[in-house]
Order: sequence, then structure tokens, then C-alpha cells
Amino acid sequence: MPLPSKLRPALPVGLRRYLPILDWGARYDRATLRDDLIAAIIVTIMLIPQSLAYALLAGLPAEVGLYASIAPLVLYALFGTSRTLAVGPVAVASLMTAAAVGQLAAQGTPEYLGAAIALAVLSGLMLTAMGLLRLGFVANFLSHPVIAGFITAAGLIIAAGQLPHILGIAGGGHSLVEILGRMAADLGSVNLATVAIGMPTLAFLWWARARMKAWLTARGLSDMAAGTIARTGPVMAVAATALAAWAFALPAAGVAIVGDIPAGLPVPALPPLDLGLWAQIAVPALLISIVGYVESISVAQTLAAKRRQRIDPDQELIALGAANIGSGLSGGFPVTGGFARSVVNFDAGAQTPAAGAFTAVGMALATLTLTPALYFLPKATLAATIIVAVLSLVDFGALRRTWAYSRKDGAAMAATILVTLGFGVEPGIIAGVALSLLLHLYRTSRPHVAIVGQVPGTEHFRNVERHAVVTAPDVVSIRVDESLYFPNARFLEDTVLAQVAARPELRHVVLMFSAVNEVDASALETLEGLNAGLKASGVSLHLSEVKGPVMDRLQRSHFLADLTGEVHLTQYDAMKRLAPELTARTLAACRRDTLRAAE
Amino acid sequence: MPLPSKLRPALPVGLRRYLPILDWGARYDRATLRDDLIAAIIVTIMLIPQSLAYALLAGLPAEVGLYASIAPLVLYALFGTSRTLAVGPVAVASLMTAAAVGQLAAQGTPEYLGAAIALAVLSGLMLTAMGLLRLGFVANFLSHPVIAGFITAAGLIIAAGQLPHILGIAGGGHSLVEILGRMAADLGSVNLATVAIGMPTLAFLWWARARMKAWLTARGLSDMAAGTIARTGPVMAVAATALAAWAFALPAAGVAIVGDIPAGLPVPALPPLDLGLWAQIAVPALLISIVGYVESISVAQTLAAKRRQRIDPDQELIALGAANIGSGLSGGFPVTGGFARSVVNFDAGAQTPAAGAFTAVGMALATLTLTPALYFLPKATLAATIIVAVLSLVDFGALRRTWAYSRKDGAAMAATILVTLGFGVEPGIIAGVALSLLLHLYRTSRPHVAIVGQVPGTEHFRNVERHAVVTAPDVVSIRVDESLYFPNARFLEDTVLAQVAARPELRHVVLMFSAVNEVDASALETLEGLNAGLKASGVSLHLSEVKGPVMDRLQRSHFLADLTGEVHLTQYDAMKRLAPELTARTLAACRRDTLRAAE
Repeated sequence: MPLPSKLRPALPVGLRRYLPILDWGARYDRATLRDDLIAAIIVTIMLIPQSLAYALLAGLPAEVGLYASIAPLVLYALFGTSRTLAVGPVAVASLMTAAAVGQLAAQGTPEYLGAAIALAVLSGLMLTAMGLLRLGFVANFLSHPVIAGFITAAGLIIAAGQLPHILGIAGGGHSLVEILGRMAADLGSVNLATVAIGMPTLAFLWWARARMKAWLTARGLSDMAAGTIARTGPVMAVAATALAAWAFALPAAGVAIVGDIPAGLPVPALPPLDLGLWAQIAVPALLISIVGYVESISVAQTLAAKRRQRIDPDQELIALGAANIGSGLSGGFPVTGGFARSVVNFDAGAQTPAAGAFTAVGMALATLTLTPALYFLPKATLAATIIVAVLSLVDFGALRRTWAYSRKDGAAMAATILVTLGFGVEPGIIAGVALSLLLHLYRTSRPHVAIVGQVPGTEHFRNVERHAVVTAPDVVSIRVDESLYFPNARFLEDTVLAQVAARPELRHVVLMFSAVNEVDASALETLEGLNAGLKASGVSLHLSEVKGPVMDRLQRSHFLADLTGEVHLTQYDAMKRLAPELTARTLAACRRDTLRAAE
Repeated sequence: MPLPSKLRPALPVGLRRYLPILDWGARYDRATLRDDLIAAIIVTIMLIPQSLAYALLAGLPAEVGLYASIAPLVLYALFGTSRTLAVGPVAVASLMTAAAVGQLAAQGTPEYLGAAIALAVLSGLMLTAMGLLRLGFVANFLSHPVIAGFITAAGLIIAAGQLPHILGIAGGGHSLVEILGRMAADLGSVNLATVAIGMPTLAFLWWARARMKAWLTARGLSDMAAGTIARTGPVMAVAATALAAWAFALPAAGVAIVGDIPAGLPVPALPPLDLGLWAQIAVPALLISIVGYVESISVAQTLAAKRRQRIDPDQELIALGAANIGSGLSGGFPVTGGFARSVVNFDAGAQTPAAGAFTAVGMALATLTLTPALYFLPKATLAATIIVAVLSLVDFGALRRTWAYSRKDGAAMAATILVTLGFGVEPGIIAGVALSLLLHLYRTSRPHVAIVGQVPGTEHFRNVERHAVVTAPDVVSIRVDESLYFPNARFLEDTVLAQVAARPELRHVVLMFSAVNEVDASALETLEGLNAGLKASGVSLHLSEVKGPVMDRLQRSHFLADLTGEVHLTQYDAMKRLAPELTARTLAACRRDTLRAAE
């Protein structure tokens, strides 16, 4: 349905539409630069440990996380329409990458890395194509309860999956059931040195996230300063534990460390061009694309609304697509707009996507200079970073609230959580989408319909079940509160035929079309069949209050020519014609009283 | 959404609901018996050649067609709610059976027959389960254009697939492309004796269907007699060609004949209990179930409407399920209600499902006595029967009409036809369903929304694009012509934020909910986000004309408590409150003029 011109978003056209940087870049000034730089520094400090941690979560070498935090940020700055979205590796997409690639190759092999890179490129191509084709609406397949349930379950799986790193045992598995099973089998071989470094780190990170800011402000720091320092918690943990691992020679005690990270910027390279591989990752790539897009667009829209800015959902697809293609071609894995870092970026005062580009510069510098210092970084530290980050995603309260609001939405959410926990991320998201669609079709296949009668003394017609109205014995007027299309076409036929079968005295059926915004070909055929069926049993079919666009379309078919009854401008006109004694009887007597009562 | 009680179909309850025979059987009398018997005889004459032909089409021995025409008819008579539906083998389900089973086993093997039987039982179990769970609405997944396109394409594939039988060459293939390819490769080995018997039969059957009735009435026969004789065309062709094949020893000349058909009634037996097999046929069984159900319910509803009778869509699922289980357990293949035979049954005066039971008796007698006479029946005759029967399914005019009415529906139909012809029945129906759902979601994801203003001098608010209305600069009123649920939740947010971003002077947003019948959890979350986002930018959010059930549900959430604006009973109330100078200014001056003009 075309949007009326006044509602069309006031978006730039031409090249500016596809390169928003031309728009904001032209007005860039020194004050904006300062704001963007400050935000970039804060986000970079946050992103260094996260990028390493999410690479670990995806089962990839640490440098892949760094690579995924450079090119994608620059590309999003060129193409993105959100001023404050922080793009890069995120927890849920990393988990989905691990699930998808883990089915194809073993961790640590070149095939595993190649598949992750191909996944980023393919996901990027899909996102770009969807953007160019204006297919942003497919993200609507994911209802809020499904995505919320999925993220809660993914958070639990991620947190559970990191516990083995903190206990120094072998882990693995793609569902909560698998992960807990393997962990239980391996509990005997806990490495105490790893626990000794992992547990305090976990406790410190939790404290830094939940309490440090309040603790600092209580000690006299400004709100801004306390918040900024609190955000350096993960970097402090990285520095302290790497130092401790070096000083106490912890690797010799069995503590797993990050080890060699190749220094230097990523070298552009093509992903593996293996059609069989691409076919195998097509479905995961689509799921990662859609889940990532929904996550990203939600936070982008929320933040834009706070500053009365606009984002263009289709251009966002193109920007995220470019970011993922860039990530893959520079040796990275799938990225998207992350919730936590975007909020930090916004709060830190980022004004334009240039802040993201500056973050990329920061990450590039880190890649060039910091990697030797990360050699002794314990993997347990990264695992603790992940656990603290993702537990904020887990929100069972949403399940309770959704269930209280709507049983159907609550059921879809519970199913998504259970299937994700029990069978992994891909079955979970697919089950959620399928159930949402089924419930949606179930609902639209049974629209609200009311038999209406005349409110005495007025030209209004209301539901006979709720109002004291008058009706004629040989006329039934049915108001359909929904557009007529294939999910409900048969239902309308069924409803009308039930009336006709139950009331032998019936001579006229009037369908009141005041809420019908569309009649598709299925509904048209149903109406034609209904008209013919009613004709055979001596009942004529009328329409009333048909809207202009619906009428235009009906006139392109034979339906109006074959209609046994008429199309009436209003429901009152229809009744005046079909039951004149009824309208005359009630109208004259009541008009004055009702008008008086209405004042 | 629950149906208001007055609209609920007046269906029988308890045992009578599940055994409609208790209802009509109690009132059975001699006149009804006579009518049913006459109809049964006519349908039996029609069904004998069709049952053999459709077994051939499904790649099964001829007797399987006879078996599928006995038990299923009796079971439908017990459980069915249509008085006139003729159940049994039909062309499209037979083609789908051939496509499904052909992937698993070679024709003529016990595995092939076993799989076809298992397909009938599994399809029957699925239909019954759907009926007991009241899942009839899943049939709505198939829009009319998709089913019409599918049937047209299936008709073409069936007709093309029978041509080799008439030419006496080897055939095969599941898509039009395959079939034509194999036929072209084999054209050198045409059997002239087969052509000599097949082509005249084809011509005669076409003439019998299209012209014989008119020819007979022109020679003085009554309309009824001429129609009845014309319907015996296929039986005449069977008798004449079987006689000719015997008299001229055609099998020796290379004419393929039906050969031995085991005499005697089918022996009840369990289908192969092989879980691997059942898993492989699960998707085809579901597709056959749904396509068959849609075909059947369409004709049942059309015929019932003509006599002001009612059918119960959920009970129909149970009845078709029982018929298919019965078919499988008695050695038959999938069945459903057929269009042509049901119309004949109706026209011949069938009054109750007993006519179907009598047809079953006729078919049982045929199975017991006629099989030796069918030994010499050329397969070419059956192929000609099929071709003439299915070509009436092919309707390219529907494509033209649908396209003219709606581009989207036309595109879905064209895609279904092309994919079915090019890749076979299963990809075709799946592509059609997927495309319908996508187009449906695309449509509902972009509901009609209008910015409304006050019609001067009235309390009415209309679209600013279509009417001369007045608006206030700091208030925007948006009417949404659709329930709010996940497919369009984001769209609403987008629309509102576009307004806010474009109009810095805006202070109030009023959402007019007159056409909103539901707000699901996704839309609720969007509204909450919108409220918070607007609050941050100093704009308050109001609702107006919220319907009772929607309000009830909103009260179960925090939304109303957090709402920055208010919920107004009517749009006029909202404007009186938010822009009092506007309503006062226009109202007094214009009231009299407008009232006068309106009279």
C-alpha cells in the first residue's frame, strides 16, 4: 500500500540517500569532532576486551575479533543512517557463528576460520540485497516476544558455555543441555590455577558493572568521571590478569592464555569460493542477518528517537551489509550494531558516525601495538568478560510480563526459550518465527465480525450483542472488522452461510465494509461464490460503506455486475432501501429525544 | 478472537457433532432413498473408469483405484457433513502421490505400493488430528490464486504425462520439462496400434464431454436423459476399446493393457510400519492433506450453499481423515472430495451421504464381478479418460483475471504455475504458499495510515490528503487502519518518528485507534518505546477512540501508567483538549453551514 506523500519520511534522495556521510559530513565542525573523539576513546577501551572475548566465543583466534572491529566500523560510518550506533562483534551473533560454523569444521582449523569469514561475506551480501530491494520488512517476521526470548536463551547458553574456561576444563556444545552435560562429565579435571584467576576476575567485573560507579561517586567523583572509570573495568581486568599470568608463570600451572596474536593490520583477502560451503551456510547466514538486523535497528531507533533523529531501515540494511562484507574481506566474522556499546557511545556524546570511524582508528592502533602485551592474557579473563556482559541480556521478567499481557505472545516466547535452550540457536529462532507466523495467521483468519442493528432514532449501526438496536427479520447486516484476504476469506463465507442456514426467513445479506481496507483475489472469489450461492437459495447480497480504493478494484472485476443486491453508500441507505418500514418507524419518533440526550 | 455467540454456527453438539449420520439418518425416508440410489448409480458409472485411471496416474495397479473407492466412501458417509460431496481418487492427489512415492521406490515394486498406502494413512492421521485440534484454518495458508495456479499447472502436467500412454512410448517425469524431454527423446518408437486405439478414444471422449449432450437433445432426448447418457461416455469407451483389444488381439501388436486385476474385495492390512519411510513422506503427506482438503471444502461449501445447508470445516477434516485412513488400511491410496463427481452427484439429486455409501456398494460389486472384463482394457483408454478429465482443470483465463484485479495475487499465481511446471508439484505448492505468506506479511507490514484533521464545523476527523480539514501546528493526529501486531509494529514507530523529526514545533502525537482491533505484545513494546522516545524529545503521546477489548488488555500492562499523554474517548475530545482554540474557532462559525449543506 503506498504511503500517503505527507507521511513519507523526509529522507535525502539520490547519492545522499545511499551515502549519508555526504549529508552530515558537509556540516562537520570542531565541536562535533571533539564530542566524537571523546566517545570514540571510551568505546575503544570497551571494545578491545570485548572484541577478543567475542572472537573466543565464536571459536576463532583473538585477532579475528580485532579485525572485525576496524573495517566494519569505517564502512558503517560511510553508509549508516544512525548517528550513534556502535557496530562490531556482538555476543549473540558470535554464538550463532559458533553454532553455524561448528557443524562444518573443527575449531582451530583453517576451514573453521574460512567458514566464519564466508559467513560474514554472505550475510553482508544478503543484507545489502535486502536493502537494495527494500525488503526491510522481513525483519518483521521476528516478533518482539520471539526475539526477546531468543536473546534471553542465547545469553544463558553463552554464559554457561564460558564457565568451562573459568574452571579450566574442556567444554563445548551448542545447547544448554549439551553444555551442562559435557561440563558435568569433566568436573573432575578442574584446574585450580585457572579458577584462582577466573573467579576473582568474574567477581571484580560484576562489581565494576553493578557497583563501581556508585562506589566512586560516593567517594566524591563526578558522575561522568565515575561512569567512565567504571567502564574501564574490563580493561583493568585484562591488564591485571595478563600481568599476573606473566609474573606468576601461570601458563605452566595449566592456565590457558591467548598466546601469539599476529601484529599488524588485517590483509584484505577473498573468502573461500566454495559453492558447496556457501550453500551449507546460507540458512545460518540468513538467520544471523535477520537477528543482527533486528537487534541493530531496535537500538538505533531507540537512540535516534531520543534526539529526534531519523534512521532509514532500508539504508541500515545496506550499511550493515557493507560492514559485514568488509569484515569478511578483512579477515573478520559477522558483526552488527551492539546494544551496550551503542548506549555508551550515545551517553559519551557521539554526534556523528565519525565516532565509529575514530573507534576503528583506535582499534587499528591497538592491533598494531598492543598484541604483544596480550600474549599472557588468560582466556578465563575473556570468559569472565563475556559472562558479565551477557547476563544483562537474560530477562525472565519479560516472559512473565508478556504472558500476563497476552497468552499467545507468552507461549511463542516460552517456546523460543525452551527450543533454544534444548536444541540450540538455529532451531530456537526457527521455531519462534514459525510459531509467531502460525499464531498470527490463526488470529487474522478469525477476524472480529459483528451483526449490527440500527440504534433507534439515529443513522448509526452497532453490534447487536452490545447495544439495544433494532433489526429487520429478513435482513442481516454483518460488519467485518478486518480487511478481507486469503487468511480470512473462508471464515467470512462460513459466517454468512451460518446465518443463512439458521434463518430461513432471510432475504438480504448486507456486508458493511467500513473497516475493510482491502479485498484480495481470494476474498473476491469468496464473495463471488457467496453471491452465487446466496442467489441459488434466494438471498441477495449487498455491500455498504465500501471505501474508494476497494471500490476501484472491485470495478476491475465482474463481481459488481453479477451482484444480486446493490452497493449502498452507507449502511443507513441500505436499511432505508431494504427495510423502509423499520427505519421510518424508529426514526421520526426518536430523533429529537436522541439529539437532546446527545448534547 | 472468540466469535460472538449469535454468529456461532448452529452445529450439533456431542456425539452428533462427530457422527453427522445420527442427524440425517434419523430422518431418512423412502423418497430420500430413491433419490440417493439414482445419484449413486450415475456416480458409480462415472467412478469405475476414473478409479482405474487415477490409479494408473499414481503409478499404482488398477485395483488400488477400486479399493480407494469403497471404504473411504462409507467412512465419509459416517463422518462427513456435506450431503453431496463425492469422495474418492482424484487427479491432483493422484499426481501428488506419484510425485511423492516416485522419489522413494520404483513403480511396480511392493515398496512403491507400500509407500502409497502409508501416504494415505499418514495423510488421514494428519487430517484427523487437525480436525480434532480445530486447525482447519491452516488451509488458509493456500490463497485462491495459489491453489488455482497449482491446479492449472497440475492439470497440464497430468495431461502431458498421459500422452506417452496414447502414443505407446515410455514416459515418466514429474515436471512438464522432464515429461516433454523424455517424450521427445522417445518419439521414434511410437506404437501405431496404440495410437490407432488411443486417438479415436480421446476424440470420442472429448466429444462426449463437450458435445454429446447437445447432440442428443437435438435428437429429441430429454435434458436429463441426454445428460445421463453423455456421462456414460467413458464407460462406453472402456467397453468398446476392451472389446476391440480382445477382438483384434491388440496386445500382440504392442498395445499395453490393464491385464490381471485380482477379483474380490480388499483385505484390511496395516501399512508398512517403517519410521524412516514415514519421516520421508511426512511433508508430501501434509501437502496432499492440505491441497486435498482445500479442494474438497471448496466444492462442499459451494454445493451446500445452493441448498442452504451447512458444512463444518473442522468435522470435514475428521471425515476426510477417516476416509484416508480407511483407504490406506484397505489397500488404497490418498482420496479426497472431487469436484466433477460431486457436481454430478448433486445434479443427480443426491440428498444425503448415503448416496456415497451406495456408490461404495456399486464399486464393491464392480470389484467382485467386472475385473475379468477389464483384462483387455487398453491403458491408452484410461490415459484418454484422464486427459479429457483434467483439461477442464486448466484455466489460464483465471491468471489473466487475477492479474487484472491484483498484481500481487497475479504474481503469486504465475510463480506457482511456473515453479510447478518447471520443478514439479511439491516445489510448486511450497513456492506458492511461501510467496503468498511473504506478500501477505509485506502488505500487513505496511498498513494504511492517515494524518487526520477536523472537518470544519463537525466532530469528524478525516484524512488531510483527501479532505479540506484543519489541523493544529503542534499536534499531529494519526489514524491507523489496521490492528497493531508484529508485522507492522515497527512501521508505526517509523511513521510517527518521521513526523516528529520533520516537525520541530510538534508537542503532541495522537494515535486514533478507531480501526485497531488488537495490540499484541510486539506492538505494545513499540508503543512503550515510542512513548519513552517521544518523552525524551519533549513530545507527549495520546490515544483516542480505543476499543474496549484493546483497553482491557492495555490495562494489564504498565503502558497506560507511563503514558505521557492521555487516552481520550474520542478524537474530538482529544483535539478539544490539546488545541481548544482550533475546535472553538472552527466549530461555532461553521456548524450551521455544514449542517445545511449536509441535508
